[in-house]
Amino acid sequence: MAGIGDDCGVLAIPPRHQLLVTTDFTLEGVHFRREWYPAAVVGHRCLTRGLSDIAAMGGDPIAAFLSLALPRTLPQTWVDGFLEGLLRLASEFRVTLAGGDTAESPDGVLADIMVVGSVPMGEAILRSGARPGDQIYVTGELGGSSAALEELSARRRIRPLLYPRFLRPVPRVVVGRVLRQGGLASAMIDLSDGLSTDLAHICAASGVGARILATSIPRAVVGRTSIRVDLPKSLHGGEDYELLFTAPRAKRIPLRIAGIPVSPIGQVTRGKRLLLIDEKGAETPLHPRGWQHFSASWAR
Amino acid sequence: MAGIGDDCGVLAIPPRHQLLVTTDFTLEGVHFRREWYPAAVVGHRCLTRGLSDIAAMGGDPIAAFLSLALPRTLPQTWVDGFLEGLLRLASEFRVTLAGGDTAESPDGVLADIMVVGSVPMGEAILRSGARPGDQIYVTGELGGSSAALEELSARRRIRPLLYPRFLRPVPRVVVGRVLRQGGLASAMIDLSDGLSTDLAHICAASGVGARILATSIPRAVVGRTSIRVDLPKSLHGGEDYELLFTAPRAKRIPLRIAGIPVSPIGQVTRGKRLLLIDEKGAETPLHPRGWQHFSASWAR
Repeated sequence: MAGIGDDCGVLAIPPRHQLLVTTDFTLEGVHFRREWYPAAVVGHRCLTRGLSDIAAMGGDPIAAFLSLALPRTLPQTWVDGFLEGLLRLASEFRVTLAGGDTAESPDGVLADIMVVGSVPMGEAILRSGARPGDQIYVTGELGGSSAALEELSARRRIRPLLYPRFLRPVPRVVVGRVLRQGGLASAMIDLSDGLSTDLAHICAASGVGARILATSIPRAVVGRTSIRVDLPKSLHGGEDYELLFTAPRAKRIPLRIAGIPVSPIGQVTRGKRLLLIDEKGAETPLHPRGWQHFSASWAR
Repeated sequence: MAGIGDDCGVLAIPPRHQLLVTTDFTLEGVHFRREWYPAAVVGHRCLTRGLSDIAAMGGDPIAAFLSLALPRTLPQTWVDGFLEGLLRLASEFRVTLAGGDTAESPDGVLADIMVVGSVPMGEAILRSGARPGDQIYVTGELGGSSAALEELSARRRIRPLLYPRFLRPVPRVVVGRVLRQGGLASAMIDLSDGLSTDLAHICAASGVGARILATSIPRAVVGRTSIRVDLPKSLHGGEDYELLFTAPRAKRIPLRIAGIPVSPIGQVTRGKRLLLIDEKGAETPLHPRGWQHFSASWAR
């Protein structure tokens, strides 16, 4: 591995493995504001975005590449903090920072993280594998990041211990690997955009529909008074970096994987519709209302 | 290959090959101005930066990933042109656009191109392999891009046919592959920052010095009156995307590789100094005066 300092990073991929590659922007003013939380949190969350995508394929992360453009006036302490947060998470997952690019930014901090990983040939868990009759599961609790963002947008400070999943999200790499090794999941995605939107991605890729039980959704408990977030936040709030996956009924899915709770929340259906079932059994259409990517024509 | 639309791109790497990864920013206001040239040229040059890094390792490009943040007011025709230029070059080199990220930009077009490639195990041509006594070579002609930038900065229009290497630089992937397959080059780098700076990178990585003959440097012929660029432009001008490489004396280096001229320009020396020999045989120190990357602490 040549690493930082040659024209390319040179990496070994295990024999009979495929390569996984993901890239994610972290742009000041779009994905974060500098006054919201310390630089180390920005760095941590920047790498989480990439590791979470590797987790969603059931893969093992290998190396990260960071393209970082900084405004001339940015204090060096901010850069040091950012890298400290990013590198601490990288070392937790034994991921090497193997290269990248640097530039001066015309406006604000611009980071693009790329993570490469590997998965045994043909074993990547895609979005397209859900089949009618499969159960739908999520890891952890949902809506906590949305609640934190609401506080920050209202210019209220948030205490790290009360919003741990927002400020130090641990990507579900271990859970993803267990699901892949056990051949348990038929389709998977990470919850970066929000349950309603990410579920729609799985359903579109698999050509199926879904019925979700509102009462089964694990809603996050956050804040000073330890309240449970409301249903809309757990349905549509993004940036929880939990895993959403489907599994055939015949597979026994543990209630916890690597210490993380796993909750069944509904079933995959033959139709193309996404339905939400309330506590009285009434059905309403579930429209994707999470984060909608700004889509250029090529990404549509 | 899952490609655009899953959490990661999934790629196959040939058996007994190592992976090459490179990332390069193309930022409006830093690397280009929108009024300078058509969107297709911006897209072409964006991908050239990545392919040129793969070429510099003697590798074969496989796939590209594009992170693209666009201002809300950007006309769709600009985006279409950018992608057209990028995809046309990608198809020339049989490179798949296998994924990426999109976002809204707070200010100006922000692109980050990542290219992955492969090279047979242990055969990547690094910057660190130059040995005292090796000959130093460059492909093509140098300084043409610097001359084009000078025209553009003075708000003069440039005609594509008179500055082809600047507006449609073809990355030297084929030359790099021939040098690697023939076991010809001991060290290599692409000329993105300028000869004096990129030569200094090879010398630093290899722990050697160099003597360059001013009269041997192939200076580009450009512009309406077909003039040869001056020596400083060929020494310090960046963005030519030619290859700079070293080879042991015993290796016979062809005068042309894949139709591209290859010029011997000097020798690797035991000392650490970089020297320029003028037409009268006088030595002067050659200081790196090309593009100096904005270096954050982690990249130093």
